[in-house]
Amino acid sequence: MLNFSFVNSTQIHFGAEQIAQITDEIPKDAKVLMTYGGGSIKSNGVYDQVVAALKDHTWQEFSGIEPNPSYQTTMKAVALIKEHQLDYVLAVGGGSVIDGSKFIAAAALFDGEPWDILAKGAEIKAALPLGVVLTLPATGSESNTFSVVSNLDTNDKLPFASPFVQPKFAVLDPNVTFSLPQRQLTNGIVDAFVHTVEQYLTYDVNAKVQDRFAEGLLLTLIEEGPKVFSEPQNYDVRANVMWAATMALNGLIGAGVPQDWSTHMLGHEITAVYGLDHAQTLAIVLPRMLAEQRQVKQGKLLQYAQRVWQLTPKSDEQSDIDSVIDQAILKTEAFFHSVEMPTRFSDYQLGAEVADTIVAQLERHGMTALGEHQDVTLAKSKAVLLASV
Amino acid sequence: MLNFSFVNSTQIHFGAEQIAQITDEIPKDAKVLMTYGGGSIKSNGVYDQVVAALKDHTWQEFSGIEPNPSYQTTMKAVALIKEHQLDYVLAVGGGSVIDGSKFIAAAALFDGEPWDILAKGAEIKAALPLGVVLTLPATGSESNTFSVVSNLDTNDKLPFASPFVQPKFAVLDPNVTFSLPQRQLTNGIVDAFVHTVEQYLTYDVNAKVQDRFAEGLLLTLIEEGPKVFSEPQNYDVRANVMWAATMALNGLIGAGVPQDWSTHMLGHEITAVYGLDHAQTLAIVLPRMLAEQRQVKQGKLLQYAQRVWQLTPKSDEQSDIDSVIDQAILKTEAFFHSVEMPTRFSDYQLGAEVADTIVAQLERHGMTALGEHQDVTLAKSKAVLLASV
Repeated sequence: MLNFSFVNSTQIHFGAEQIAQITDEIPKDAKVLMTYGGGSIKSNGVYDQVVAALKDHTWQEFSGIEPNPSYQTTMKAVALIKEHQLDYVLAVGGGSVIDGSKFIAAAALFDGEPWDILAKGAEIKAALPLGVVLTLPATGSESNTFSVVSNLDTNDKLPFASPFVQPKFAVLDPNVTFSLPQRQLTNGIVDAFVHTVEQYLTYDVNAKVQDRFAEGLLLTLIEEGPKVFSEPQNYDVRANVMWAATMALNGLIGAGVPQDWSTHMLGHEITAVYGLDHAQTLAIVLPRMLAEQRQVKQGKLLQYAQRVWQLTPKSDEQSDIDSVIDQAILKTEAFFHSVEMPTRFSDYQLGAEVADTIVAQLERHGMTALGEHQDVTLAKSKAVLLASV
Repeated sequence: MLNFSFVNSTQIHFGAEQIAQITDEIPKDAKVLMTYGGGSIKSNGVYDQVVAALKDHTWQEFSGIEPNPSYQTTMKAVALIKEHQLDYVLAVGGGSVIDGSKFIAAAALFDGEPWDILAKGAEIKAALPLGVVLTLPATGSESNTFSVVSNLDTNDKLPFASPFVQPKFAVLDPNVTFSLPQRQLTNGIVDAFVHTVEQYLTYDVNAKVQDRFAEGLLLTLIEEGPKVFSEPQNYDVRANVMWAATMALNGLIGAGVPQDWSTHMLGHEITAVYGLDHAQTLAIVLPRMLAEQRQVKQGKLLQYAQRVWQLTPKSDEQSDIDSVIDQAILKTEAFFHSVEMPTRFSDYQLGAEVADTIVAQLERHGMTALGEHQDVTLAKSKAVLLASV
């Protein structure tokens, strides 16, 4: 096991009727900016529940945080905060709203040009406190320090992280997911699955708890994911997917183990250029990335095949090992299909032309050596992209 | 899944050489009371590492916190704190030192008679900040709110819990466990195993992540526990056991699921009267408690048999189900034996006389209806105790 430091300070309130908890979680004298996206929270009742919980608070709202939240939009919220001297951000939405709100919370107290946080890794020294009402289980952003923000002017989609933007609390009510469209549910399931894989399918460091936990999340998503669609009224299915998605990226399963994230880096560039949903890009890239890296990942791929898919090689012959790894990758892709997620560029009317474009983006952002061994070169990334057409 | 609220605010520093982190974790102007037990930290080098890390701090020490920490001993530390106006407690030891130090931290700021915290559940409104250097993986006390303290005058062993005594940080260096005697290692492995079982082997609420995580901890302990003795120099084995023990009782696997704890309640009484180590009592009680409760626990016992011990009934016939459950309980007991832990009262020269004595203790402490269904009556407890001779 590798050395690690780990803490997750976000207070979770999980279950039905938990939105009311925000009344006590946000200080009575706070001046709150409630942030949200396109307004679906107004039709599914979440907005009304939040408003009821804030009835004794001073608050304003900022709507219109878009999927892949933009620097341009979030800076309008920062202006509103400064104009009205607001001091608490309450994000009501999915990963995009939360990521955007993290940037808002940091930018509001940033001394300088906030884009430097993303473009230059400028140090964050403070942020407004942030609370979350999660409406879409997917990114884990509700209880971690990470955020990804895009610049519409430059086609950049860039990450940052800071302990100052870790949410103080997060409300996870599985009931709020019943009104989600199929595409967002699919995205969430795939996103959580790939988050787990990025922290699990690397190389063995004999971290048995972390491995078992990661496998537990994958098995849960494989078992419950398709039921989101076949049993659309099943509360426990929604609850299991929601909790799995949070646990997939709250720092726990990645503590003490190597991490990959090469699939995510390619995915971010694909979204920035072609506008595909984040999870759509992951489902395209992951199967081919695993195939491309099968030699350096062989030990963990075999463990994944055995413990998650019950696939065991007939012998120690390399051909039998290869066969099992092939099957495990095919099972992974079939799982994505089982939750209505395409896995090819051609499903989005894209072809081999993406390869050079994305490789140029990777090069521009210095992503020339990705993965747990830093051995995913631009040539390997290109091969992965071409194989994914 | 049941509703839950969960947070774990303890900053973990895990791995070799992490004791040095306490220099930065404890405020520079703190006046520290370092607490420890019988002095083994002086022979294994932990004391020297802690002293080196505190070289720029003001600190004093208090030694002699015994296994099953006593009210009598801990109150001497409280007197020292008050005399020298100390304001930070640094516990260096295993579960007993940490539990005792939690009581010290709370009692130092308690307005009234501190024993009321244990005897009357008096509310804790503040506590001194507490940091931990863990030397014995077992209880999980290093990152939770729980503590158990004994009164030597009255044979009481009573628990309390408060968010104020949750450690601010905990250093987990697996290297410090290499010098532990076999008995303490055995105790720790069994303790962590039974903690997990108490939160897992209840009834099904369709909480798939929690179940998979609990099974992951059990599988890790089963796999690594015996290796602690067969591969005594293996760092990863120590690391896996240490992290499993922490995860077994940091609140995570118990969030959103029913919990049992009947085995623990009987165990505490056995320790209070007969002085057996905590884990020794658990290993005696658990197999018979599972057998006694096999009907109400049948679903989860079958899941445990299948996922942890790869035992599947030949058919849906009750006799086949019973057979598999019998085997799973036997496997559990055999696992305890595999880490050198006895599982019978007779191994400690105790006989059927314990039953009435312990039942009287349970009655005196109001423990007349234990377990996840509150259906472990005094009669059932007596049957469990008699069967455990």
